[in-house]
Amino acid sequence: MLDFKQTDTNLHKNKADIVALSHLFYAKNWSLATSSNYSMVLSKDPLRVLITASGKDKQFLCENDFVTVDANGDLIDAQNSEHKQSAETLLHTAIAARPGVGAVLHTHSVASTVLSNKYCSKGHLEIQGFEMIKAISLDNMKVSHETCIKLPIFANSQDMVALSKLVDQNYDSLPKGFLIAGHGLYAWGKDLSEAKRHIEGYEFLFEVLLKSGF
Amino acid sequence: MLDFKQTDTNLHKNKADIVALSHLFYAKNWSLATSSNYSMVLSKDPLRVLITASGKDKQFLCENDFVTVDANGDLIDAQNSEHKQSAETLLHTAIAARPGVGAVLHTHSVASTVLSNKYCSKGHLEIQGFEMIKAISLDNMKVSHETCIKLPIFANSQDMVALSKLVDQNYDSLPKGFLIAGHGLYAWGKDLSEAKRHIEGYEFLFEVLLKSGF
Amino acid sequence: MLDFKQTDTNLHKNKADIVALSHLFYAKNWSLATSSNYSMVLSKDPLRVLITASGKDKQFLCENDFVTVDANGDLIDAQNSEHKQSAETLLHTAIAARPGVGAVLHTHSVASTVLSNKYCSKGHLEIQGFEMIKAISLDNMKVSHETCIKLPIFANSQDMVALSKLVDQNYDSLPKGFLIAGHGLYAWGKDLSEAKRHIEGYEFLFEVLLKSGF
Amino acid sequence: MLDFKQTDTNLHKNKADIVALSHLFYAKNWSLATSSNYSMVLSKDPLRVLITASGKDKQFLCENDFVTVDANGDLIDAQNSEHKQSAETLLHTAIAARPGVGAVLHTHSVASTVLSNKYCSKGHLEIQGFEMIKAISLDNMKVSHETCIKLPIFANSQDMVALSKLVDQNYDSLPKGFLIAGHGLYAWGKDLSEAKRHIEGYEFLFEVLLKSGF
Repeated sequence: MLDFKQTDTNLHKNKADIVALSHLFYAKNWSLATSSNYSMVLSKDPLRVLITASGKDKQFLCENDFVTVDANGDLIDAQNSEHKQSAETLLHTAIAARPGVGAVLHTHSVASTVLSNKYCSKGHLEIQGFEMIKAISLDNMKVSHETCIKLPIFANSQDMVALSKLVDQNYDSLPKGFLIAGHGLYAWGKDLSEAKRHIEGYEFLFEVLLKSGF
Repeated sequence: MLDFKQTDTNLHKNKADIVALSHLFYAKNWSLATSSNYSMVLSKDPLRVLITASGKDKQFLCENDFVTVDANGDLIDAQNSEHKQSAETLLHTAIAARPGVGAVLHTHSVASTVLSNKYCSKGHLEIQGFEMIKAISLDNMKVSHETCIKLPIFANSQDMVALSKLVDQNYDSLPKGFLIAGHGLYAWGKDLSEAKRHIEGYEFLFEVLLKSGF
Repeated sequence: MLDFKQTDTNLHKNKADIVALSHLFYAKNWSLATSSNYSMVLSKDPLRVLITASGKDKQFLCENDFVTVDANGDLIDAQNSEHKQSAETLLHTAIAARPGVGAVLHTHSVASTVLSNKYCSKGHLEIQGFEMIKAISLDNMKVSHETCIKLPIFANSQDMVALSKLVDQNYDSLPKGFLIAGHGLYAWGKDLSEAKRHIEGYEFLFEVLLKSGF
Repeated sequence: MLDFKQTDTNLHKNKADIVALSHLFYAKNWSLATSSNYSMVLSKDPLRVLITASGKDKQFLCENDFVTVDANGDLIDAQNSEHKQSAETLLHTAIAARPGVGAVLHTHSVASTVLSNKYCSKGHLEIQGFEMIKAISLDNMKVSHETCIKLPIFANSQDMVALSKLVDQNYDSLPKGFLIAGHGLYAWGKDLSEAKRHIEGYEFLFEVLLKSGF
């Protein structure tokens, strides 16, 4: 069993890491206008997920701006009584519940919005021929620049229960990420560093595709 | 009645908040070459609006670079005798006088200049199908990504009296913002945070439209 | 006659202001790879111009990286014996010698390179219909967004004597700036603040033209 | 023979300089998602090259994140036992072994990815007519804006032995840099400053070409 003090220190460290990431992603224009949510897994059984509270300005995110939720996305703990979990929390918990997932990041960039809208009817974005593909760690396969990644695009919806079920049903085929049309990118990893690398890799590849005329 | 010291502290806080915003918007290339003006409502009755003085470099904006004006845009108070109110002050006061408005921001980005010029003859910019639309708080309606926003574009003019009357007459149909052709964006909110979110939301959507070929 | 100490203090202040500008312009990608030169007029009669020494990395520009030159571009004073004046110094002195000019800035942006190359054969870049045109202070005329600015484009050359004569001969028709094809922008003003505003105004307008399909 | 303390101080300075460069290139989006590697020559005979360890986040690169390798790319020294040399180390050592080379930099920008992919079948990228070409110091020739640079593009491969041989065989015709298709830019110089200038010059020119419709 975890020592309480140790847990407390970890919680503080986890929040500080997400806060730094938030300020970075805001500066890169991936999290403007209170968009985006970031989460980390605190425990798997029972599932406890630390996630940014709803509606926070990501430029000013601070350690008070988090809530903890369970597998149903219900509030376990909040920094203060005004904090609510975001509607998108269910997407985070659906992924966070899976083995090997330690952090889930949702960004809202211009490039992901444009491409996810344009290729929504096709159902996925095809990415191949770029060295940056190697930044994505896929399970049970060795990735090279010749690997063809089909990044799924789900239609946007305000029904987060339905959307999270869709993600859950398709989880095994997801390349550590997916797009929601006109909305943005979800990507995850075994820890925050890997999730950050996946976000950066995908956002880079979106810019490459856009500037290549896709 | 407000305690004097409290008012003084608030004024200091308001200026500091606008100064930080100014440096941010300058860094994002939304306020180059002394363009842009930012204002906050100090009181509604009588109307007192704190607004950036004319011609200030937004990279270096500091707490001395403000004036206070009344409902007619006339000078009530200046930090020093060389400060003048901007010609665009009347646009700020026309909006600031309305119930529920606490801050008005004018930015001057490349994307808003290009799009407002291109769609000026149509009279508005149509925005639909993007999750970011939810960043705009419209009165008396629930916004989703399917909401169609028609952001009005007014022809540019150096006659600020005429332009401010036009804004006043059309106020009820304005989606917390409007464009002036070849000039830029005005957006506002109940407070500075909401006005900032509206600016960021619209500027993001302009970039999406531009990169989608609009 | 100026008090020596006062002059010394001014020199320190002038260098510090240019150093800050250099770091800003580098960050905006207007002065990469040791490109760009910045100058200020120390005295008009005899002409003494403070200018960045040749080949300095603008990210790291510091107060030791300046030389002082006369009207012929000859070295009057250097911080250390390894400093040379840039080949482009003659362009700076040709402009700095004119009445009312206090600072001359040369930037080397992507947008000015692309547009000056594309419109070189036409001899100028035409700019009209944008509010940002008001950022440019033209002598003896009131500027509005309807003012048509014809920004001259000179063919690039490594013969700086010939190029500086061309600039000198055309000085009266220059709108506080000109382009050199495939090379970049020169702009100036009564002081460093005005020169900075002219650079920012023109660089903004170049981006607008590029994104408008020019 | 070098005094040990002096060597130690130099090593510390070399690492600090690369760390600063890493943070800069990350901020410019040239080294996202743990991409890029940077190296400096510690000695030529025997060849000792200081190089960033494999898989490090370039935003957070610190003085512990280096290894030292020999001419075969084999590990001579590591900060800690978990550090590995990158697969691309052989490309660095192939160049670092040449006379006059003090530093080798590999960046991974959007523009270099797009252009190297597009012109791969042609075998090189042709660059002419831009003043920025003068930022590249070519051996045994005077460079002007009229110099035509043919920057070779090698097909991407995960076989670094073959790729490094190809670079070695073509070394004499390389203009202080080359591209790998869909992967990015290598550039070098007599020291870190010159290598940085070459990277910045090439990356600027790629942006110019992209925005000129190439």
